[in-house]
Amino acid sequence: MPAGFSAWMASVQASVEQALADNLPPADATPQRLHEAMRYAVLGGGKRVRPLLVCAAGALFDAPAATLSRAAVAVELIHAYSLVHDDLPCMDDDALRRGRATVHVHFDEATALLAGDALQAQAFAVLADAAAGIAPARQVEMLRLLAHAAGSRGMCGGQAIDLASVGLVLARDQLEQMHRLKTGALLRAAVLLGAWCGKAPDGDEQRALEDYADAVGLAFQVVDDVLDATADSATLGKTAGKDAAANKPTYVSILGLQASQSLAEKLRIDAHTAVARFGAAAGPLRQLADLIVQRKA
Amino acid sequence: MPAGFSAWMASVQASVEQALADNLPPADATPQRLHEAMRYAVLGGGKRVRPLLVCAAGALFDAPAATLSRAAVAVELIHAYSLVHDDLPCMDDDALRRGRATVHVHFDEATALLAGDALQAQAFAVLADAAAGIAPARQVEMLRLLAHAAGSRGMCGGQAIDLASVGLVLARDQLEQMHRLKTGALLRAAVLLGAWCGKAPDGDEQRALEDYADAVGLAFQVVDDVLDATADSATLGKTAGKDAAANKPTYVSILGLQASQSLAEKLRIDAHTAVARFGAAAGPLRQLADLIVQRKA
Repeated sequence: MPAGFSAWMASVQASVEQALADNLPPADATPQRLHEAMRYAVLGGGKRVRPLLVCAAGALFDAPAATLSRAAVAVELIHAYSLVHDDLPCMDDDALRRGRATVHVHFDEATALLAGDALQAQAFAVLADAAAGIAPARQVEMLRLLAHAAGSRGMCGGQAIDLASVGLVLARDQLEQMHRLKTGALLRAAVLLGAWCGKAPDGDEQRALEDYADAVGLAFQVVDDVLDATADSATLGKTAGKDAAANKPTYVSILGLQASQSLAEKLRIDAHTAVARFGAAAGPLRQLADLIVQRKA
Repeated sequence: MPAGFSAWMASVQASVEQALADNLPPADATPQRLHEAMRYAVLGGGKRVRPLLVCAAGALFDAPAATLSRAAVAVELIHAYSLVHDDLPCMDDDALRRGRATVHVHFDEATALLAGDALQAQAFAVLADAAAGIAPARQVEMLRLLAHAAGSRGMCGGQAIDLASVGLVLARDQLEQMHRLKTGALLRAAVLLGAWCGKAPDGDEQRALEDYADAVGLAFQVVDDVLDATADSATLGKTAGKDAAANKPTYVSILGLQASQSLAEKLRIDAHTAVARFGAAAGPLRQLADLIVQRKA
């Protein structure tokens, strides 16, 4: 990882961590247990891939830091709520996340359910904040984008297809469709929200960003499947091998390990190609694509 | 019930039902089971109290019907999602709602969880719609109000306090605080969103609407507690007597039945008084207060 990128990443991660802490209700505000659970679910962990995408895309369009910060927080809160609900016993029933007990294990199921619900509401509250520094018409567009990315034709829809596919043999395009919704929609929203925080991208620029986001979104999932099949739980900070154990279709189960690794590498190159038009300014976007494909956890 | 009010109510209910159906994804769109569950949760039942409040408040400020319809749908989707999650086994574990099997019983728990999540996202998508016919700055304000009403210092927070109070003896003001969040926040949002769909209320008008909403919100809950203690499941369309069975504090358990009934009547009068300044135009708001207090289910 180039030293400049590594420093940029650490600085974004630190400022997002602070912004997340500032945009969550204090743990001592009533109802305390709910607020503790919300903060536990969000703070002190995670790679912050979505906030990094927000900021890397925003840098191309001269977006102000304070505006990017709100968008990054909103996207990350949606992501965090989805993990809390995804870990519940009626979904993946997982006890370990980011190397710690999941929210329903550390607190209880009802609190985890409500914390997820409240985090979703908080994401929209943050993006609708009067102090966001975005022209209202743009702000409404961004809220709309986030709502669609989170909903039944975005992230929730992908999770529903994921559930329905347990034990089935999916064709590769069905698996791809599932992931385009489950993880792709929110990663795409992160890239576009980042760009929209600055001067608006034109049609060609918008399409380039969408192509980049689609390649990165798919690469992210292919690599997740590869890691689930090859890494151990301690390295991942979550339960390894659970997809195979749950009889879920994955890229590895459909394509095999080696072809999955080649696909991830191809998607990494696709992501680079998509943002070539932006020249050196797209360095962080390119390096994020590298990071997503070459990560070990 | 006066005949004019009854006809107005039936017409609002019919148009809201249509607007809800139009603003939910079709049942045959992928993922079908999720979309079926969302439609099952929302359509074909419910008194539509919140949409009625939206429209009654909007009428005072000359709000256009199409604009009111979006706000009404958004609030009702938040309400519907909260019922789906509230009925889950880890919350109230209820099998009956609006005289039908609850979503997790009719479908399954995971689908109910995701349907609730997706309904919340859809509420914000509808209110953020470009076709909403609201000036963007106002639209952002409305989205912010709804997000706060739904979140951890609104509805979700009230549910968390409700959970935490099982088996406890609450003082009356603690019970009131819980209900101000659990049901009051969203009823208040309904009244204010309706008003904001039209020409903006001035400071005094805004306070009058808030006083009205607070009285009606509390009355709603007091009457719920009275009905839970006195009506049967068939009349209610949901399980009767469950609060006492669950050892939850209620107005009836704290004040007794007769004092609870007197309190509801007092709050009805308070609601009337609050909107006296609007004269005859506030007829629907007054009659909704009557309906909420005098309902039998």
